[in-house]
Amino acid sequence: MKSVGVIVEYNPFHNGHKYHIDETRKKTNADCVVAIMSGNFLQRGEPALVSKWSRTKMALEAGIDIVIELPYAFATQKAETFANGAISLLNALHCDEVCFGSEHGTINEFIMTVDFMKKHQETFDKYLKEAIKEGNSYPKAASLAYLSLSNDEKYLDLSKPNNILGYHYVKAIIEQKSKLIATTIKRTSAEYHDEVFTHTSIASATSIRKALFSTKGNLDEIKNFLPETTLSLLTAYYDEYKQFHQWEDYFGLFKYRLLTSNPAELALIYEVEEGIENRLLSTIKVSTSFKDFIERIKTKRYTWTRLQRLCLHVLTHTTKNEMLNIKENKSASYIRLLGMSQKGQKYLNLIKKKVDLPIISKLSAHKDDLLHLDSKATQAYLSIFPEPLRSKLLHDEYSTPPIRYNEKNNFFIQ
Amino acid sequence: MKSVGVIVEYNPFHNGHKYHIDETRKKTNADCVVAIMSGNFLQRGEPALVSKWSRTKMALEAGIDIVIELPYAFATQKAETFANGAISLLNALHCDEVCFGSEHGTINEFIMTVDFMKKHQETFDKYLKEAIKEGNSYPKAASLAYLSLSNDEKYLDLSKPNNILGYHYVKAIIEQKSKLIATTIKRTSAEYHDEVFTHTSIASATSIRKALFSTKGNLDEIKNFLPETTLSLLTAYYDEYKQFHQWEDYFGLFKYRLLTSNPAELALIYEVEEGIENRLLSTIKVSTSFKDFIERIKTKRYTWTRLQRLCLHVLTHTTKNEMLNIKENKSASYIRLLGMSQKGQKYLNLIKKKVDLPIISKLSAHKDDLLHLDSKATQAYLSIFPEPLRSKLLHDEYSTPPIRYNEKNNFFIQ
Repeated sequence: MKSVGVIVEYNPFHNGHKYHIDETRKKTNADCVVAIMSGNFLQRGEPALVSKWSRTKMALEAGIDIVIELPYAFATQKAETFANGAISLLNALHCDEVCFGSEHGTINEFIMTVDFMKKHQETFDKYLKEAIKEGNSYPKAASLAYLSLSNDEKYLDLSKPNNILGYHYVKAIIEQKSKLIATTIKRTSAEYHDEVFTHTSIASATSIRKALFSTKGNLDEIKNFLPETTLSLLTAYYDEYKQFHQWEDYFGLFKYRLLTSNPAELALIYEVEEGIENRLLSTIKVSTSFKDFIERIKTKRYTWTRLQRLCLHVLTHTTKNEMLNIKENKSASYIRLLGMSQKGQKYLNLIKKKVDLPIISKLSAHKDDLLHLDSKATQAYLSIFPEPLRSKLLHDEYSTPPIRYNEKNNFFIQ
Repeated sequence: MKSVGVIVEYNPFHNGHKYHIDETRKKTNADCVVAIMSGNFLQRGEPALVSKWSRTKMALEAGIDIVIELPYAFATQKAETFANGAISLLNALHCDEVCFGSEHGTINEFIMTVDFMKKHQETFDKYLKEAIKEGNSYPKAASLAYLSLSNDEKYLDLSKPNNILGYHYVKAIIEQKSKLIATTIKRTSAEYHDEVFTHTSIASATSIRKALFSTKGNLDEIKNFLPETTLSLLTAYYDEYKQFHQWEDYFGLFKYRLLTSNPAELALIYEVEEGIENRLLSTIKVSTSFKDFIERIKTKRYTWTRLQRLCLHVLTHTTKNEMLNIKENKSASYIRLLGMSQKGQKYLNLIKKKVDLPIISKLSAHKDDLLHLDSKATQAYLSIFPEPLRSKLLHDEYSTPPIRYNEKNNFFIQ
């Protein structure tokens, strides 16, 4: 059985994602498509719109065969760490290929650029340091350093977000000495950060979320951009839980947490650096919303995304110490299975014996440092629900087996 | 000007408290009555029903001349520490007397009992240790040890809650070498812990709170037990803030806090001892309310009150380290003025020059370790309000001067 991996957030799943899955199958001729998906919180430091369970169902109905949770320790990080975690999971699952969407669209330049960068690492680092000294944020500085190094057209345009991710996937494959073959599909439309609709059936997840929150659960405006399954799963989620998740929902907890912490405690939190804890503490008192808060502390160096991630680690109380082993190992230590189709199950049965990491079906049976971070993240994610719903969902998280999807007759078992 | 101190919670102010003030004036012939009052959280480890500002108004209208906040570090502790803080504040304010309500009703036996206990401290400690070893809670063990030591009628009945407090007031006066003269008034009815109404005009604060919560802000059932001012202040509070405060309102925050802390961090919290942090963590997951939670962890040794206090310190994130200097100093380091009548203002002007502690009118101008605990407590107390109300009230706490009450024309300035 040939398998291919995709690395996703599905926040929420939309027609662009469906296109990516279909093209991936066509291009790779794979029998089994494995998705490594962020869990409760996403790479930009935000809560997922709906639970990972709901997003797993969206993925399975759209043709994904296996959904694996990317641990919090990787999912909420800059591209390099995010990529390291995701690629290590595809390795562990013995996938043959990985196929990612990119603005660039052909794979050779990714490999050439990684190679080129490896050769010029020192010069790049020097430029990077200079650009950071000039007060640029890390991503901006990296982009400037890269431009100084080479503006040759044979290399990638690393100002594009999906090119950056792809670059780090390829780099991780090489560094991890992985057998994964990388391929890429050109993204046809809808830029990652688009906030308005510019296409008739494909829109960015950002613009879809924006519409969802402004219409308070009314899906009419976005229905052209989502598969029917996503639409009905989103409707079901809103009906059952009375909300989609966004940072503002967590602001009350976040503010409470900050205001009952002292600077020394905050300095232990991951990504809280350079004395920013004092600015967090003085600013939070007068901030009446999360947006208000971030706007007050945002600077050229501290981008919105960097601040969101940092705030997320405050919310989940993730310390530098807890993140330490990630920095050292750069790879996942378990495989958290969220869902599978019948084909996915067959694939897992085939590879099971040669998989070196524990495959986690039920959380309650396992202990692991990384898993503890996921567990805290889930607890924070569920904290906005009223009781007894909150306790019920927390219990489900520990006791529920993965979602099984019968793709022939189109139904779920959970 | 002669001054007398009373030590109170006023949660809420009721006819029994009014009787206590009037009898105190009669008995002591004092010109000025100073109340040392708990702030956001009370001795039994609970949030105050309404804000300290509202309770200050109740007190001023009923004849109190000066309202001073008993710092969190004393207000939320066992009787001994509570008494030490309160008596140290009355000392600092150069009060002539202190007058407390007690079941016993005459002062001599308090002094004799303190004296007797001092002489038999070692034997008492031995009995206490034995009783604790047998699995009794601290208050139960203390009561048993005391009974073993003496059942002579000339000593106090220290199984009564107000006798216990009075005993510790007198003990603190002696230990602090204070010039305060202690007097006591016999409580005529309504036991401290009564949950039902047994009298026509006096009821315990416990029974009043119980009725308030069960009728959701409807005050008809309790109007006979409260002065009109209390009634209208309670109504105004409910109209403005849509609630009275109780532990259940803080359960969501508390659960979030526990679930995103690890055992080692919890063990740093004040009163978290003997590995109870592990039981807190395993129990909170399945608990759907505060009551549910306490009932699950309550044992013979861990009484409801002890657990409530411990949970409160978790909620406000008060560490053992932060409480350390209290244990050592046993006295307050500032005087936080919440309100005063014109007579109270006159008294303060008279004594101002000989007061050794800073008198705090506006929080924003001061820094102090104890004050920091009060500040965190306020932040936790206000955390259940929606924005922008929460930010407004927090701002008020820092910037608002004390309430001034014109007793002749019966109006407030704040």
